[in-house]
Amino acid sequence: MRTLLHPTRAVAMAFLLAIALGTLLLMLPVATATGEPPPTVTAFFTAVSAVCVTGLVVVDTGTYWSPFGQVVILLLFQAGGFGFMTGATLLGVMVNRSLRLRTRLVTQVEAHVIGLGDVASVARLVLVVTAVCELLIAAILAARLHAWYGLGWGEAAWNAVFHAVSAFNNAGFSIHEDSVMRYGRDGWILVPLMFGIIVGGIGFPVLHDLRLRLRDPRHWSLHSKLTLLGTGILLAVGFVLVLWFEWTNPATLGPMPLGEKVLNAAFASVSARTAGFNSLDISALYRETWALHYPLMFIGAGSAGTAGGVKVGTVFILVLLVFSEIRGLPDNEAFGRRISTTAQRQAITVLVLGALLVTAGTMILLRLTPYSADRVIFEVISAFATVGLSTGITADIPPAGLLVLTVLMYAGRVGTITLAAALVLGRRRMPYRYAEEHPIVG
Amino acid sequence: MRTLLHPTRAVAMAFLLAIALGTLLLMLPVATATGEPPPTVTAFFTAVSAVCVTGLVVVDTGTYWSPFGQVVILLLFQAGGFGFMTGATLLGVMVNRSLRLRTRLVTQVEAHVIGLGDVASVARLVLVVTAVCELLIAAILAARLHAWYGLGWGEAAWNAVFHAVSAFNNAGFSIHEDSVMRYGRDGWILVPLMFGIIVGGIGFPVLHDLRLRLRDPRHWSLHSKLTLLGTGILLAVGFVLVLWFEWTNPATLGPMPLGEKVLNAAFASVSARTAGFNSLDISALYRETWALHYPLMFIGAGSAGTAGGVKVGTVFILVLLVFSEIRGLPDNEAFGRRISTTAQRQAITVLVLGALLVTAGTMILLRLTPYSADRVIFEVISAFATVGLSTGITADIPPAGLLVLTVLMYAGRVGTITLAAALVLGRRRMPYRYAEEHPIVG
Ligand SMILES: [K+]
Ligand SMILES: [K+]
Repeated sequence: MRTLLHPTRAVAMAFLLAIALGTLLLMLPVATATGEPPPTVTAFFTAVSAVCVTGLVVVDTGTYWSPFGQVVILLLFQAGGFGFMTGATLLGVMVNRSLRLRTRLVTQVEAHVIGLGDVASVARLVLVVTAVCELLIAAILAARLHAWYGLGWGEAAWNAVFHAVSAFNNAGFSIHEDSVMRYGRDGWILVPLMFGIIVGGIGFPVLHDLRLRLRDPRHWSLHSKLTLLGTGILLAVGFVLVLWFEWTNPATLGPMPLGEKVLNAAFASVSARTAGFNSLDISALYRETWALHYPLMFIGAGSAGTAGGVKVGTVFILVLLVFSEIRGLPDNEAFGRRISTTAQRQAITVLVLGALLVTAGTMILLRLTPYSADRVIFEVISAFATVGLSTGITADIPPAGLLVLTVLMYAGRVGTITLAAALVLGRRRMPYRYAEEHPIVG
Repeated sequence: MRTLLHPTRAVAMAFLLAIALGTLLLMLPVATATGEPPPTVTAFFTAVSAVCVTGLVVVDTGTYWSPFGQVVILLLFQAGGFGFMTGATLLGVMVNRSLRLRTRLVTQVEAHVIGLGDVASVARLVLVVTAVCELLIAAILAARLHAWYGLGWGEAAWNAVFHAVSAFNNAGFSIHEDSVMRYGRDGWILVPLMFGIIVGGIGFPVLHDLRLRLRDPRHWSLHSKLTLLGTGILLAVGFVLVLWFEWTNPATLGPMPLGEKVLNAAFASVSARTAGFNSLDISALYRETWALHYPLMFIGAGSAGTAGGVKVGTVFILVLLVFSEIRGLPDNEAFGRRISTTAQRQAITVLVLGALLVTAGTMILLRLTPYSADRVIFEVISAFATVGLSTGITADIPPAGLLVLTVLMYAGRVGTITLAAALVLGRRRMPYRYAEEHPIVG
């Protein structure tokens, strides 16, 4: 019983169940706009993409699926985003109070960040933050869509709720075929979406820290400091480089006035790391901007949130390690704390497994499709990091290739460590080490 | 004086001096076949490529340069290959007997592998192995070229010496415009070249171990065991995948009989990781075979030899770390030894710096050239890992792009750690830790 309910397996199983349920619901005739049941592969791929909050699609969400189908998709990415995070935390803590290292999703809710005692407070925080953010964003979007774009209140509300939930859960699904490109000059739409993307993607250990100690940054956990600083750096770098690379691209930033250039470069930088909305035509970006997306997508955002990728904290730990190694320091230090060797090991594990998955996925997809390597690499990293951006090839990939993408999405979302540990679970055990400060990895 | 002669700086400086000298010599009118002095950028790029044993060329070595120019190139890659390795070792040990960790090239010659006492024996080993291998290979090649291809003894000897030295130093230079493609069906040429490439690329700490303890594998150093096993795995994987991917390619393996298929796939696997010769047309390989080359080239071969890349040992340490982390083991173990955390830190440092260089180089070259990303990534990794294979774009890259490639070659050869440490050298010092077994990284 303990083994069956072990949190790492439970999380992996919960995702599989949600995918199975979602596939079944999407295969109902009522799920499509035409009333014809969709091909199995379409329903399955869409369910995986939604549960894994990726947003890659083989059919247009707004026209192919009926309102029922769209609600199913919405519920799937709401569940796959913040829903399971809470469930996994609660389940994990109930089943296994010792918080072993290998139990990844449990580890992410660090003992020192959220004491074992306040599980209820964690769940409450997640629910409250989710509800408040999604309602707030949806309200602004609905008002704007009604007042400025002339949509009726009903249509505006549905449009707003769908995009607000999608943004906060970094799901990347849009009911528009062009994602949010039609709002490319509208800060009233893009800025609330960016807010939702960043808050949802930062991870709730950071949110918890901010709620408890907003005015006292010195006592934030090392994980929060690393994630916040790393997020800021990545946002700035992405913004500057997109602006620079695309400045003269006639199909993207080129013809825009300065303010719009800035708005769209900022949105691209925010969205690239895990959200998957696009206000610029991804297929029209210069190749160097695609190449910029590779590391941004691969890194992703914060741990234990809605983000994919190997996570900001993971990469920051490795970068600090490189600096301390170059400077010849014996320990890897940050903000007056020593980063544990265990964290460093986890970081490199996550990075290496991610790199292996992306490399293998790229080679397999190159065998299965006729597309150029830069598009294939983009698609593979987008799937693994559950970003959902595409250079426009997803719909034309054959079923075997789509299966590869679903495996990447599932592995990327459930977590490479969780998955790998679950496979060999129970063979060995080691006690938790409490001695060092231990930032979150992966 | 101590600071000036510090081994890391001395190595970096020696490479710069050789490059400067080589550039000057190649700019002489006597260096070209026409007697016209070459453009500075051509002489400079060729000198960097030769000293850094890369083999990327913007002009055809056999027809553009005169015999004098070809001899200069030969001497440059002989010096940049095994020559400097010996010099750096001797200089390093003389200047700084404490073998600090940051002195990379000195570290590579591990205290426990080659005691401080037998510096002379190291130098002798290198010289003897170099001379014996190069002469042996050249003799076989010359005999074959004379007997089978009908070349006169003089021409056969020069051809044989050039390719033997180039193979053993993993330099990748050929006096043929088609590299060794014309010998694609001739095992008498390709097999000796493969032998030279592997022995030269394995690194001389391994050769030293093999010489001392050939019959006693249990007492080989951890570094030797990791490098030999890793090399075997990579050779096998590369061979099988090239064979599989290219089996039906009408421009490469497709039309060949079985024996030739096997010979050429084996040669491609051996050569891809650092040598840079090609018996198949690289520009005609399928895109998935190019993608296979990315990790093979990036990894490279053994430490402290003629190989580039992040090195087999580095990657093996990280792979072992991932396995032990997944299995929940507290330590990273291999062959009954615990791999030191210092080695793991060095490994991740080398990997991260390499990935950063390749990513930055790719984005810059994508800005500067019109080529597709898969060709550019190939070129950048080939330069960084001093492989020298190309999809055929080198000669058409503008001077600014060539400069980027020279920086990558230099950084890749002198070593990212050496370079980074040299830049901040002397600010901090830490004592050497002798406690653990310490495999070579990078
Ligand atoms: K997404
Ligand atoms: K080479």
